[in-house]
Amino acid sequence: MRCDFNGPVCFEIIEQDTQSSARRGRLKTRRGTIETPAFMPVGTQGTVKAMLPEQLAELGAEIILGNTYHLYLRPGHKTIARLGGLHRFMNWDRAILTDSGGYQVFSLGELRTIDEEGVRFQSHLDGSFHTLTPESSVEIQEALGADIMMVFDECIPHPASRDYVAHSTARSMRWALRSKKARRNPNAAIFGIVQGGMEQDLRLQSVDDLIKIGFDGYALGGLSVGESADVMYEVMDWTLPNLPTDQPRYVMGVGTPENLVEAVARGADMFDCVMPTRNARNGFLFTSFGKITIKQASYRDDQQPVDPACACYVCRNYSRAYLRHLYQSNEILSSVLNTTHNLYYYLHLMRQMRDAISRGKFGAFRQAFHRQRLSTGEA
Amino acid sequence: MRCDFNGPVCFEIIEQDTQSSARRGRLKTRRGTIETPAFMPVGTQGTVKAMLPEQLAELGAEIILGNTYHLYLRPGHKTIARLGGLHRFMNWDRAILTDSGGYQVFSLGELRTIDEEGVRFQSHLDGSFHTLTPESSVEIQEALGADIMMVFDECIPHPASRDYVAHSTARSMRWALRSKKARRNPNAAIFGIVQGGMEQDLRLQSVDDLIKIGFDGYALGGLSVGESADVMYEVMDWTLPNLPTDQPRYVMGVGTPENLVEAVARGADMFDCVMPTRNARNGFLFTSFGKITIKQASYRDDQQPVDPACACYVCRNYSRAYLRHLYQSNEILSSVLNTTHNLYYYLHLMRQMRDAISRGKFGAFRQAFHRQRLSTGEA
Repeated sequence: MRCDFNGPVCFEIIEQDTQSSARRGRLKTRRGTIETPAFMPVGTQGTVKAMLPEQLAELGAEIILGNTYHLYLRPGHKTIARLGGLHRFMNWDRAILTDSGGYQVFSLGELRTIDEEGVRFQSHLDGSFHTLTPESSVEIQEALGADIMMVFDECIPHPASRDYVAHSTARSMRWALRSKKARRNPNAAIFGIVQGGMEQDLRLQSVDDLIKIGFDGYALGGLSVGESADVMYEVMDWTLPNLPTDQPRYVMGVGTPENLVEAVARGADMFDCVMPTRNARNGFLFTSFGKITIKQASYRDDQQPVDPACACYVCRNYSRAYLRHLYQSNEILSSVLNTTHNLYYYLHLMRQMRDAISRGKFGAFRQAFHRQRLSTGEA
Repeated sequence: MRCDFNGPVCFEIIEQDTQSSARRGRLKTRRGTIETPAFMPVGTQGTVKAMLPEQLAELGAEIILGNTYHLYLRPGHKTIARLGGLHRFMNWDRAILTDSGGYQVFSLGELRTIDEEGVRFQSHLDGSFHTLTPESSVEIQEALGADIMMVFDECIPHPASRDYVAHSTARSMRWALRSKKARRNPNAAIFGIVQGGMEQDLRLQSVDDLIKIGFDGYALGGLSVGESADVMYEVMDWTLPNLPTDQPRYVMGVGTPENLVEAVARGADMFDCVMPTRNARNGFLFTSFGKITIKQASYRDDQQPVDPACACYVCRNYSRAYLRHLYQSNEILSSVLNTTHNLYYYLHLMRQMRDAISRGKFGAFRQAFHRQRLSTGEA
């Protein structure tokens, strides 16, 4: 697959695994190339919490996610546009993907009402009233200067009745068309989002609807909403093989390291999740042998690094005892170091998967990855 | 003055200002040379809040301060010693000066009782009972691995009766002797601390008492306790000229940028203060034209850096609008960037003063420094 860069982004598959659907690719944007499978750290309010942009780049992040809902409310997309866009505002010159704001708006529960036009909601900050529509969402994302925008849709709660899922998904598909039509900036890519809940036929219908509209990439939405891992993988199995092979596939809001490995095996190219950053701030650290809780008393005098097999800055320079002390003392550096370690873990995991695919060893990597966790009692 | 490094530290004066008592010097320790006048960032709990050690070194910090009281209670000096000492624990290989714990213990108010032996106090963390004496303070500081230790003393509150000041100062001088006798590690320097409140004769008596004992350096304690700047400068005028010229003089817990300039003019060589770091976390930023409050609404759309005259990483890369947004959004990066800027400001101010002294221009620097502040309404 040649990459000729006619559109806002261009994607090429470098290597296709022969035993699974895993593939290694390159997503080229005007702000640099993203090696896939890729993990996107989440920068909710114009910052990936506790990280300097230089630290993110050093860790190997080639793209981050920005949250339309949060930035729209504070400091406001018009303010950010006046200040030169989100990249300049936050001093990040690599690619940014923005979500549509839909996920946060729908999470507001009592504070929002939905109709065909869009969603009316009250700000969680000051109770003020706002409306988000496919058109305004895209307008905000363009004002922010996103390299990749997402269509405005509803992330359906789980469980939900088949009727609700059908109704919501059909509306999200109409909103997807309106989102695409609302694009003014030809240099901003826009991805469609597959919905359809946990219903196979509705998922397939959604895939068809989106392909008919035509997008620069396709995302799988409505996962990590409380369903079991088996159900999540089943939804991936229904949908991912039916998405265009020559375009990037983004699984939204997923997930644990185990989820990422299984999603890559099923042909996913891009991910975002707050798990590495949020867990870090709560003292949960990812390691090659599973997750550890740094506040445990057993680490009080522990000279070892978090993960003796890890080569990150934190593991090269600090003991578990020090990280425990920082966490117990409520020190800002606790969040900084824990986030650095967890993001390294996630970004390194993606690197390992890309390397394994290139070397034709993804199957062996996947087996070894799960075996190591099972042997240490992690699922 | 030649530096022959017979003791744990050695100090040489490089340049003496001719119009004031300002002097430029070099304090050599086994963990590197500290150019004086020097500012020491405060690392209360084994971390200078919000800073990585590499960032501190990059900012030009050559020595930091560690707090004996906090580290004794958590994680405990024995734990730190088992883990290889404070330098290794916190990944800082430059010099560390530790305070004696006296300041924090005396601040506990109701929770402590004093007698000739020392201070019995209750932990602010869990209410447990502890005793700190000159001997145990030095033992803790040696366990932490301090390059420079401080004698155990009482920082006298202000105002205080002359009787209280006389009684307390005499006891602090007896404790100073006991502190020096308690030293076991010949590679750890120990500084005496001048007390005497705001009473000239008691200050002079304290200076004499300490010089008779003999220390590696001399500190001025009991300042920044609520007295006016004029009184603070008066105490400096009484005491600093009477301290040995060939040894370092450390003014503890001071102060504002204005205080630092005036103290240097009076012959002070070393400082520590939480002001740059604590103010940073509260959104107060130091600039060449005075202090600004980053949360002000007027910065909402302000593209300018915090201080257009500042060359720090923050001012080179971020707008006031972004820093305001981070502060308003309670983001960790707010503390990181604000602390970076404020510490740069303090450390750069010291560099400017050292340069001015070297070039024989300290008087002109001091005048220009105050003029710029007066012209912008800062005292």
